[in-house]
Amino acid sequence: MNEHTVKAFDEDITRLRGLIAEMGGLAELSIQESLEAMIKGDAALAKGVVKRDKKIDALESEVDKLAVRIIALRAPMADDLREVIAALKIAGVVERIGDYSKNIAKRVKEVEERKHFEPLTLLPAMGEIAAEMVHDVLTAYASRDPILAREVIATDEKVDAFYNSIFRNVVSYMVENPATISSAAQLLFVARNIERIGDHATNVAEMVHFAATGNYPPDEDG
Amino acid sequence: MNEHTVKAFDEDITRLRGLIAEMGGLAELSIQESLEAMIKGDAALAKGVVKRDKKIDALESEVDKLAVRIIALRAPMADDLREVIAALKIAGVVERIGDYSKNIAKRVKEVEERKHFEPLTLLPAMGEIAAEMVHDVLTAYASRDPILAREVIATDEKVDAFYNSIFRNVVSYMVENPATISSAAQLLFVARNIERIGDHATNVAEMVHFAATGNYPPDEDG
Repeated sequence: MNEHTVKAFDEDITRLRGLIAEMGGLAELSIQESLEAMIKGDAALAKGVVKRDKKIDALESEVDKLAVRIIALRAPMADDLREVIAALKIAGVVERIGDYSKNIAKRVKEVEERKHFEPLTLLPAMGEIAAEMVHDVLTAYASRDPILAREVIATDEKVDAFYNSIFRNVVSYMVENPATISSAAQLLFVARNIERIGDHATNVAEMVHFAATGNYPPDEDG
Repeated sequence: MNEHTVKAFDEDITRLRGLIAEMGGLAELSIQESLEAMIKGDAALAKGVVKRDKKIDALESEVDKLAVRIIALRAPMADDLREVIAALKIAGVVERIGDYSKNIAKRVKEVEERKHFEPLTLLPAMGEIAAEMVHDVLTAYASRDPILAREVIATDEKVDAFYNSIFRNVVSYMVENPATISSAAQLLFVARNIERIGDHATNVAEMVHFAATGNYPPDEDG
């Protein structure tokens, strides 16, 4: 590439990274707001989360188009091409993270009688960790930081432990309060959605680690 | 592109499509076998599904590498580039479909006392429709058939209706049989996983429709 092409490519990549940062910021906000809506039974807030998901989808589609245009116009090679493909994949994962929050928001109306509904109190701490993972992994992406990426991967264990604990708690609650089973089942799905958000943040962290070091971090899952 | 490059590109694309067909075949088999394992409590069959998922992941990674190589070596333009990017995305979705079956397989050991456990009988018919959607959408992809793609999209309503009916059934069963709540909760997740497989087959169908016609099918979801 000549100097002009290099500069144009760098500008394109910066724009691509900016779009992904924007997607990540929206996805993080949606995690927090979907859980707040769930806990308070706030239908308007839930509606806002569903609406925001369309914006996240539109940003992913912008990333796709820009990536295709970069490849077509600049014909990047080796590391540069890998960077564009990584952006495409990361945008896809962030879009999925957005879907989980939308899914939580859509369940808000399925939960009845929030007062004294103990299982709800278990969700915020788990949601906070997942939102922090999403925040940190996008910071790691922006700063090409493999150490932070590995910290995100390590944090996923906490989210999994939370999920297992919430699952057991909710099931016990169901046994003791059969009248609330339908609402409590919704909370099982909510906890599962948060757990999946953690998994996807971990996936992004693995991609960031790979992009920064050329290696995937050791797989703890076997 | 000169004649040689066109021929080399066509061969690459054929190989790319072949890999995706292989992924799809494995994913379809895993849907059926994960449900069979769940219904019979067959741990060995479940283990086979988990193992097969690694093969699906490896195929996706092959698709990724080949796609990057095609872009780097052949520098395809316009429609050809879009075809390669579509293959990347479709492989990603098929990999996710594989994950849902793996997830079902991993739950097999969490369900106790299968005898007389009515909710299990609701799953096979739902699973069959989802497996058929995956089969049909890959046929539509292979034959670039937008009409079949739209049929897949229409079928997703059936899967959603099944899911809602199973959810209600399982919750009623929980209320009447509190001792089985923990196992029954697993079936809620299984039904949800099948429902998500239907969603992802629908996503692929939309991509196939777009690739074949240049338009996304009308969004029924609003």
